Amino acid sequence: MTVASAEGHNGNYPGKGIGHAVGVAVLGKGTVGTEVLRLLKEFSDSLEQRVGGPLEVRGVAVSNLDKHKDAPEVQGVYLTDDASELVTRDDVDVVVELIGGIDYPRELVLKALHAGKSVVTANKALVAAHGSELADAANEAGVDLYYEAAVAAAIPVVGMLRRSLAGDKVERISGIVNGTTNFILDAMASTGASYEDALAEATRLGYAEADPTADVEGHDAASKAAILASMGFHTRVTFDDVYCEGISKITADDIAAAKKSNQTIKLLAICERLYDDAGNTTAVNARVHPTLVPNEHPLATVDKSYNAIFVEAEAAGRLMFYGNGAGGAPTASAVLGDLVGAARNKVHGGRAPAENPYADYDVVAFDEVPTRYHINMTVSDRVGVLADLARHFADDGVSLSAVRQEESGNEAHLIVVTHKALEKDLRAIVQRLSEHDAVQAVNSVIRLDS
Amino acid sequence: MTVASAEGHNGNYPGKGIGHAVGVAVLGKGTVGTEVLRLLKEFSDSLEQRVGGPLEVRGVAVSNLDKHKDAPEVQGVYLTDDASELVTRDDVDVVVELIGGIDYPRELVLKALHAGKSVVTANKALVAAHGSELADAANEAGVDLYYEAAVAAAIPVVGMLRRSLAGDKVERISGIVNGTTNFILDAMASTGASYEDALAEATRLGYAEADPTADVEGHDAASKAAILASMGFHTRVTFDDVYCEGISKITADDIAAAKKSNQTIKLLAICERLYDDAGNTTAVNARVHPTLVPNEHPLATVDKSYNAIFVEAEAAGRLMFYGNGAGGAPTASAVLGDLVGAARNKVHGGRAPAENPYADYDVVAFDEVPTRYHINMTVSDRVGVLADLARHFADDGVSLSAVRQEESGNEAHLIVVTHKALEKDLRAIVQRLSEHDAVQAVNSVIRLDS
Repeated sequence: MTVASAEGHNGNYPGKGIGHAVGVAVLGKGTVGTEVLRLLKEFSDSLEQRVGGPLEVRGVAVSNLDKHKDAPEVQGVYLTDDASELVTRDDVDVVVELIGGIDYPRELVLKALHAGKSVVTANKALVAAHGSELADAANEAGVDLYYEAAVAAAIPVVGMLRRSLAGDKVERISGIVNGTTNFILDAMASTGASYEDALAEATRLGYAEADPTADVEGHDAASKAAILASMGFHTRVTFDDVYCEGISKITADDIAAAKKSNQTIKLLAICERLYDDAGNTTAVNARVHPTLVPNEHPLATVDKSYNAIFVEAEAAGRLMFYGNGAGGAPTASAVLGDLVGAARNKVHGGRAPAENPYADYDVVAFDEVPTRYHINMTVSDRVGVLADLARHFADDGVSLSAVRQEESGNEAHLIVVTHKALEKDLRAIVQRLSEHDAVQAVNSVIRLDS
Repeated sequence: MTVASAEGHNGNYPGKGIGHAVGVAVLGKGTVGTEVLRLLKEFSDSLEQRVGGPLEVRGVAVSNLDKHKDAPEVQGVYLTDDASELVTRDDVDVVVELIGGIDYPRELVLKALHAGKSVVTANKALVAAHGSELADAANEAGVDLYYEAAVAAAIPVVGMLRRSLAGDKVERISGIVNGTTNFILDAMASTGASYEDALAEATRLGYAEADPTADVEGHDAASKAAILASMGFHTRVTFDDVYCEGISKITADDIAAAKKSNQTIKLLAICERLYDDAGNTTAVNARVHPTLVPNEHPLATVDKSYNAIFVEAEAAGRLMFYGNGAGGAPTASAVLGDLVGAARNKVHGGRAPAENPYADYDVVAFDEVPTRYHINMTVSDRVGVLADLARHFADDGVSLSAVRQEESGNEAHLIVVTHKALEKDLRAIVQRLSEHDAVQAVNSVIRLDS
């Protein structure tokens, strides 16, 4: 197979010519784009060997030419502010989208795919919102759409779900997929700091952005959960399907209580199947929320800003993948891995496995998912309160795995851990408890990784 | 693209026909083969969707027909004891080799490749000994050779090195790649048991084979080290290149001493680069030996019979992959993942990335590799022994990071931890120390994961 355009454009590569050149367009030159361009130079010989032909950067699109024109990575490279023109150029075979945002990159990626270019993107928001539309466009054009870097950067979870587990049945995925929030929770656990202080420290060290909302409220993790669930369950799950609760209400008291009970609070993205009594999958769900994880679980030991994805599959059993989930270099590593894949296919033929939502399960709202609550309440310190409130759960058909009363200064705390019940029923109970005359306050509700 | 033979053999698949059928031959029906056949049935609909056409088992080869003919997995399937005929049949597209051993499967795999069949094998000994010959045969025929299951079963380390890190530079690989020895070392660490007792327990529970030599002496791990080094460094490394030392000399005292110094002894497969002063790779090395790992290292927490591979790459940073490294189902998961890949390529065209030893580094013997020793000696309890023996290292140009004298009953122990020095020099020093009149015994020498 020949690369449609490269040959005409640049027919001979003295001393290199092990195959056709593959033309690459890079959109965006932020942290990741700069690192991708740098590594394309540093690794050029290796990449040529692995692709079967040289990777040639045909152009880099930026919004502000003046800002970037003197950067060392773009010397001798065509720099343009017209991304739309660049992605359809005849001498471009693969487009690498590293712009961020949704609407503008969507437009560019669709244009590239329609023009027969394979696309590599690191844009989780784009894939979580419009992945199916992009996959359809790629299928129609017979080209590749790669997005390993969209989930947990250099941790190759996309490849793992697409390829390595292609002969297995993924039962459940739970993961720490946001480094900022893991850094904050880990700092709170190891220093006893408040959420506010840990966030300030994360900001100071560059782990949190000036506006940390997307990270701390779980939106970033929710995009990744949508992508993981889509791949793992062969069903279209989008960002809007994902229940999302961040860590901004987690207190130092919550962390201390978790520690005392040999658990750790992690912000988990959880993708799971719902089963009928015969064990058949009836639906799937994806969600993001703070979760109590037993200390002996592999995810509990994931510290600092590291990410990890824990996968349970029918035949493979338990697998975990751990690494840097963000940052210029780790993200660039994933982008380049994808680029080698897309370029190999341009040289040798073939297509990577694409989105394949054949299973088409119902995606149920979180309300309908069984979960478990750890509830901490301040209660009146009178005889019979424990029995009284425990009865409250029993009346609603929710059984408890533990009830514990603790004195804390002048206050009496009641800690209740439920067995599994539907999220909506547990939520309703908590609402009614908060109105109960023996309950002074519901201090925290944290779900278990049940 | 059409599958050469499948169409004629079985042209229509009412109600299924999303693509051509792919004919599969399975060689061997032990634990893994049985599980592969079972899952091929259980997952048939999913596999068809993922391949783009149904996977059809055209035949199963076993050495003893009578033993297997009534097994449920082979009912309605062509069962033969003539593997050699099966692998060249026109209606077979992909051959799955699960026989074990080296010479006989080598002959069958070569025959299959020459006949244009893609091959999936779980046979680490075969790949570590003859991987290059097989890869050449696959290249010549333009077909695929997959062996994810040969290293750490369901942990997708082959795919990770071949594809996900294809745009990066692998610096170092260290891994727990043998479940039997990890089970034994973990049991010794958690119960204080002797090596002999822990081995007996592993045998009783089915984690160790009746003849445990290949596991406990590190041969199994050495095969995997050869494969990992070959892929990671794009250089041909075979079993014979790998230094190999097992765990049978590790004592309860060694384990206790490691614990006291906040370390854990693991049998590691280590693949690393050697660098010149400018940071360029001069050679590579692969080795297997018991290794002191700091407790805070992710590999230290890998317990029971789990495996884990720790990879350091220039851009990606530190990655770890954890899971079941053995067993029928996890191995079958890896085999089926490969089978889907090979079958997809038969349906859609394209080839998987193959062995690619373009870097062709020198593979140096372990003697020439810098390492670090932890040495425990029983010494004469007289004034000046510590200084005297420390001087011994200094005279040989080896600097020490720690020297510690400990009384143990009537004995005086000297514990010495060296800085990096060439393996051959450290070995020579230990030899001379053992002949030193102040040294009553060299009790143990364990390398650090330096």
